[in-house]
Amino acid sequence: MDDKVAIDYDPRTFQGLTFHDVVPALREGTETPRAYLERCLETIEAREPQVRAFAALNPEGAREAADASGERWKRNRPLSPIDGMPIGIKDLLETRDMPTEMGCAALEGSFPKRDNAAVWALRQAGAVIVGKTTTAELGGQHPSATTNPFDPRRTPGGSSSGSAAAVAARMLPAAIGSQVGGSIIRPSGFCGNVSLKPTQGGLNRGERQATSMSTHGPHAASIEDMWQVAIEIARRAGGDPGWPGLQGPATPPAPARPERLIVLETAGWAVLDEGSRVAFETVCGRLSDTGVELLRRGSHGLVEELERVIADAAGICSAITSWENRWVLRNLIDQYPDGVSERSKAMVARAEAMTVDDYRLVLLKREQAQAAHRRLAAVADAVVTLSCPGPAPFWPGDVPGEPLASHPTGNAIFNYPSSMLFAPAVSVPLMSVGGLPVGVQVMGQPHADARVTALARWMSASIAPAVEG
Amino acid sequence: MDDKVAIDYDPRTFQGLTFHDVVPALREGTETPRAYLERCLETIEAREPQVRAFAALNPEGAREAADASGERWKRNRPLSPIDGMPIGIKDLLETRDMPTEMGCAALEGSFPKRDNAAVWALRQAGAVIVGKTTTAELGGQHPSATTNPFDPRRTPGGSSSGSAAAVAARMLPAAIGSQVGGSIIRPSGFCGNVSLKPTQGGLNRGERQATSMSTHGPHAASIEDMWQVAIEIARRAGGDPGWPGLQGPATPPAPARPERLIVLETAGWAVLDEGSRVAFETVCGRLSDTGVELLRRGSHGLVEELERVIADAAGICSAITSWENRWVLRNLIDQYPDGVSERSKAMVARAEAMTVDDYRLVLLKREQAQAAHRRLAAVADAVVTLSCPGPAPFWPGDVPGEPLASHPTGNAIFNYPSSMLFAPAVSVPLMSVGGLPVGVQVMGQPHADARVTALARWMSASIAPAVEG
Repeated sequence: MDDKVAIDYDPRTFQGLTFHDVVPALREGTETPRAYLERCLETIEAREPQVRAFAALNPEGAREAADASGERWKRNRPLSPIDGMPIGIKDLLETRDMPTEMGCAALEGSFPKRDNAAVWALRQAGAVIVGKTTTAELGGQHPSATTNPFDPRRTPGGSSSGSAAAVAARMLPAAIGSQVGGSIIRPSGFCGNVSLKPTQGGLNRGERQATSMSTHGPHAASIEDMWQVAIEIARRAGGDPGWPGLQGPATPPAPARPERLIVLETAGWAVLDEGSRVAFETVCGRLSDTGVELLRRGSHGLVEELERVIADAAGICSAITSWENRWVLRNLIDQYPDGVSERSKAMVARAEAMTVDDYRLVLLKREQAQAAHRRLAAVADAVVTLSCPGPAPFWPGDVPGEPLASHPTGNAIFNYPSSMLFAPAVSVPLMSVGGLPVGVQVMGQPHADARVTALARWMSASIAPAVEG
Repeated sequence: MDDKVAIDYDPRTFQGLTFHDVVPALREGTETPRAYLERCLETIEAREPQVRAFAALNPEGAREAADASGERWKRNRPLSPIDGMPIGIKDLLETRDMPTEMGCAALEGSFPKRDNAAVWALRQAGAVIVGKTTTAELGGQHPSATTNPFDPRRTPGGSSSGSAAAVAARMLPAAIGSQVGGSIIRPSGFCGNVSLKPTQGGLNRGERQATSMSTHGPHAASIEDMWQVAIEIARRAGGDPGWPGLQGPATPPAPARPERLIVLETAGWAVLDEGSRVAFETVCGRLSDTGVELLRRGSHGLVEELERVIADAAGICSAITSWENRWVLRNLIDQYPDGVSERSKAMVARAEAMTVDDYRLVLLKREQAQAAHRRLAAVADAVVTLSCPGPAPFWPGDVPGEPLASHPTGNAIFNYPSSMLFAPAVSVPLMSVGGLPVGVQVMGQPHADARVTALARWMSASIAPAVEG
């Protein structure tokens, strides 16, 4: 296989690349966006051959944007606190200066020359668009070539593979991902990033509205940068059409200690590895030690009811998304029979076996789950669970002649609940298991994105990470 | 100007082209889809030079589809009651066999080679896609070259200009339109068609989800064909992602007499011409004569409240839609500075002067209006008002050097309410004023599409049309 060795990940000592803390130096002129960018480009040059996080890079465009930002900082007129921040854009989102190929052979060379609303907002805020980060094919399950920065034999998770990996490899302080099932929080958990999967409708998807359960959201190395990127987009481009969009303070919300948290097992509990379970119980114990009350299943009827209605979250989410994507995929397959993976073709086959009534039934189940979650608003501050069912799995590739491997980018089983509940979720890197990251997920009520961020920030600062061998 | 004379329209005698009534003959073999299609193509050949309803025509593809349909009827295995129905598709919706140029110079030659979900569903039902019908630029206000089939000096209305005109000119029994503000019901009112603007989310828009207030809906010459086309789409492609979609019987709902109707004036009352007002009062009188109770403003506090919250429907709808379209339009203008009309550029300028908070405020106003409308569910069976503020206006074209004419495709002032209320609306051709059609609009509660259709069908059969000189 790969002869490069894995890097041992320790959440107590790992330092990601941050931007918010260089702002004073930018203001004073002892740092420049161009210099910051050049360090990013050096790291990319060094790590990219192994990590393969980018579908496209635009160093010259980025240098130009960084220099323009430098001029603004020099005149003390930055457009925002992320003016000059180098950032990556998941290759599902269109950018006017780079192709958008969505990890799909059928779209090779596709170059729509326009900016997604979120990309437009980032440019308006002065951010420096460095490259397009890889995605599993069409945001689904068929993997890109990206490797986990801590072990090249393992998946970085998906579908926001490149965004998670670029941040974890310290190539960039932030990158935009997107989640339909588990595509932001899962790779974040596997890569030791923080990330925000906002409330459904939180960040304007622009023309990418074909599914009812999908959000854009930032990966970052710090909660401060994560929030700042999200709120700068929301202040300029708002949410999806018809939604109020992400709301909250113009700077990162202060850490807030929860009084009560619900520990949600989800269907993921059954497939959780022992080391991750022990690490997660350690985190729970440390939360208890600080005086946070934990509600677990069996201790409260409403928690038990929520566990019940999300038990088949995977099936419900997959059915909804398959149905909603069937026409896009059918058109693409008809036009490019060899340009779409067998995994995506299997998804269309499942969708085409559904009737409208099947779709209406899973929509109803989603609404019932949302109702059960709403009832818990007064019971606890938030939900805590894992971001992923253990460390990133090995991904040796499909074996010709064998059935397609399931979950090549890892299992989203801990992520379907927040997706179907339209709930904001933050992944916090609070665990390592066998030298690899495993994230802790904090989930709140819809529109409580700022509150969830404040709780996650408190946990990040106040709970010692759990390290299991 | 044009030396061709106007055709005097009389709703008591005008016969549109219908399909549902040839089904028995198709079954018996005394009629064939191919023969029906050829008659349509003959009418198109005769009328199209003046009406200009089509952006593209595909007679050979249509003949092939009609022959395949004929084989199915011969084997007594039609795919649906609209198998073999020739139909037009508004040029905003993609079709794999014709270009999609959206009435916009920037998109000339655009040919995405894929089917919109609704088009896909129509093909699955056996419908024969004859051509792309013209649209005002990008579904907005800048007009196509289409003329009103009853008077070539007048607009057919917009933005579904070609769909309304093709049906009114007896070129086709049905055509798909779409409405954001007033783009289905208004042209239908100007052209003497029936049409359905379904409940928001009713018919799957496929990838066209960029605005929160837009629906696809059929124009037809009969309520039977209108319903059949809509339900065949809904049974196959469902509604927009996340919405249950149009529901109702598999065949046109039987006529139903209302007990009580609310007569809504809307802001349109102030700009209504005298002839149309008199004709509408005649229709109201005839409704009363049959024993239907009419509630008018002043007679009920909740009706007065609904009038109040929709008084600025035009401003609210325009602000919402401008904001939601701003990125699409900005991208297009940046890429093709000369390829977008001044009207659309002015819309972007308005949108770019808005803040996210402005957008949130108009969304709130829309929700408040929807709440006021819901309260009326138990008060009356439906709302009745006009489809348009009088007969189709003259449209001589913009005058170089002069400010752009407002409302070149007519005023949507009677249509914004049903759009912002997400309410189903049917236009019924029950009036003529000065020899031109003026529609009556029936609007119901969201998801009551079948009920509204049943009421409209009863009105169409039981209320004698009003003719004003």
